[in-house]
Amino acid sequence: MELKTYIVGRRQEINRALDRFLPKAKTRPATIHKAMRYTLFAGGKRLRPILAIAAAEACGGKAADALPVACAVECIHTYSLVHDDLPSMDNDDFSRGRPTAHKVFADGIAVLTGDALLTIAFEIISLVKPTRRYGPREMLHELAIAAGSRKLIAGQVADLEAEGKSVTRGELRYIHENKTAAMLAASVRLGAMSANATPRELNAVGKFGEALGLAFQVIDDILDVTQSSEKLGKSAGKDVAAQKATYPAVIGLDAARREAQRLTRRAEAALTLFGRRGRRLRELSNYLLERDY
Amino acid sequence: MELKTYIVGRRQEINRALDRFLPKAKTRPATIHKAMRYTLFAGGKRLRPILAIAAAEACGGKAADALPVACAVECIHTYSLVHDDLPSMDNDDFSRGRPTAHKVFADGIAVLTGDALLTIAFEIISLVKPTRRYGPREMLHELAIAAGSRKLIAGQVADLEAEGKSVTRGELRYIHENKTAAMLAASVRLGAMSANATPRELNAVGKFGEALGLAFQVIDDILDVTQSSEKLGKSAGKDVAAQKATYPAVIGLDAARREAQRLTRRAEAALTLFGRRGRRLRELSNYLLERDY
Repeated sequence: MELKTYIVGRRQEINRALDRFLPKAKTRPATIHKAMRYTLFAGGKRLRPILAIAAAEACGGKAADALPVACAVECIHTYSLVHDDLPSMDNDDFSRGRPTAHKVFADGIAVLTGDALLTIAFEIISLVKPTRRYGPREMLHELAIAAGSRKLIAGQVADLEAEGKSVTRGELRYIHENKTAAMLAASVRLGAMSANATPRELNAVGKFGEALGLAFQVIDDILDVTQSSEKLGKSAGKDVAAQKATYPAVIGLDAARREAQRLTRRAEAALTLFGRRGRRLRELSNYLLERDY
Repeated sequence: MELKTYIVGRRQEINRALDRFLPKAKTRPATIHKAMRYTLFAGGKRLRPILAIAAAEACGGKAADALPVACAVECIHTYSLVHDDLPSMDNDDFSRGRPTAHKVFADGIAVLTGDALLTIAFEIISLVKPTRRYGPREMLHELAIAAGSRKLIAGQVADLEAEGKSVTRGELRYIHENKTAAMLAASVRLGAMSANATPRELNAVGKFGEALGLAFQVIDDILDVTQSSEKLGKSAGKDVAAQKATYPAVIGLDAARREAQRLTRRAEAALTLFGRRGRRLRELSNYLLERDY
């Protein structure tokens, strides 16, 4: 099967599963459930949940068993976008090609929508089928740490605090490691757990996720500088306008491109252990690098 | 032991346990960990965690085993206060007698502080010692449902949407059931779970928590009308000024007082099952009703 076909198929499965896990739009109070669905079904690429499923497959597991953790990480990702877009944070009016939650609903509802998506991610974890090595405790711990104040939220805080300041390459690395790479690593690790991965497999897939997450963020930084808003589905040049710390700004465009390639090779190296079963993860990694940056 | 002595002792144990569960204030990035501690150690009454411990004792359990779930519910409660105080929500400048998080830090940091407290509540659940009947799965599910979009967040949304509108008694009840009673019920149920409660005990303690939560909220509504800001530790008359839906506004002050008493009797009735072991829960219930309203 072609990678494109694989991605489209997985995306459909993920969307159907998210639809099942989320309360119906009419559930009282309708405002919050409409808003949760508005933000979650806004045409996201589903990169993290697809990677979670591919990681499960790399460890010999089935996609169906990885779907709950895949949905949980997508809910966390969407919550972080909703809160990140708030006027008190990045103040972005467009996300995934549509007006952001606080533009469509009120600011207060957007805060609560993020809260609700964060909370339902953990509710979904409580429904996960345990494997021999990993139960709800291990999966809960993995997700809570990656989404917490020393990882995802740490990255958001450091990013906010870096605005308008000159940052070092080390500080920029800290932001990306926490804001992007930690949840990507948790996504593939949770997928691997759903497949009862061996400790070696779990470790390898985590290293893959970290390297891929960093590569992905460097490429996003580059695309913000080089692409149009239409193509990005969000306001281009936003990072520059907000004096955001980005790789092109700190180390230059050419060095940023080389860094993205270096990180992708590191991600690929982590997949050696999986042999042929790691094919989809390898393809997904290439696909991300092949974006026109 | 006098109830006052009991409360002071439990409060100290809870504060020490929260201090252990939270990252140190200097942990990078320091801003978020300072803000988490600023909001969490702002002199809260620790009502929910004390009730969780008393519920564990009513089911024959030990306070030490209930401390993690007690801390988790206090983190959820504090997160909900931090987000509720935001300018886009209730826009309150004082909470627990001190300037609110968004007044001391920036609005964006206040959003992230609430997010971090919500997330760490679930991290703490992953560390809970399982009992014969209840593991991390059951406790996680209990907390995620109570804090989610059909309970705690539903109450917040309904409360926001009721501002400036005339609401029915039924709508007001819906707000209080979800905004306050659901998390109080979850607090005592989680405490009971940590004590390996029988299904009958778990059910009874949940009914107690619901009735007490409603009574507590009705009393809070009354106090907002009748007390000074200094005594409340927050801006008095705020609900009236914001045209909030409150019991005194909807059914009148006298009827609200009778409702509070009726609900407290219902809470006490739910404790019959526990006999002498339910003493502390009974005393705490009386203590809440005896507030000068």
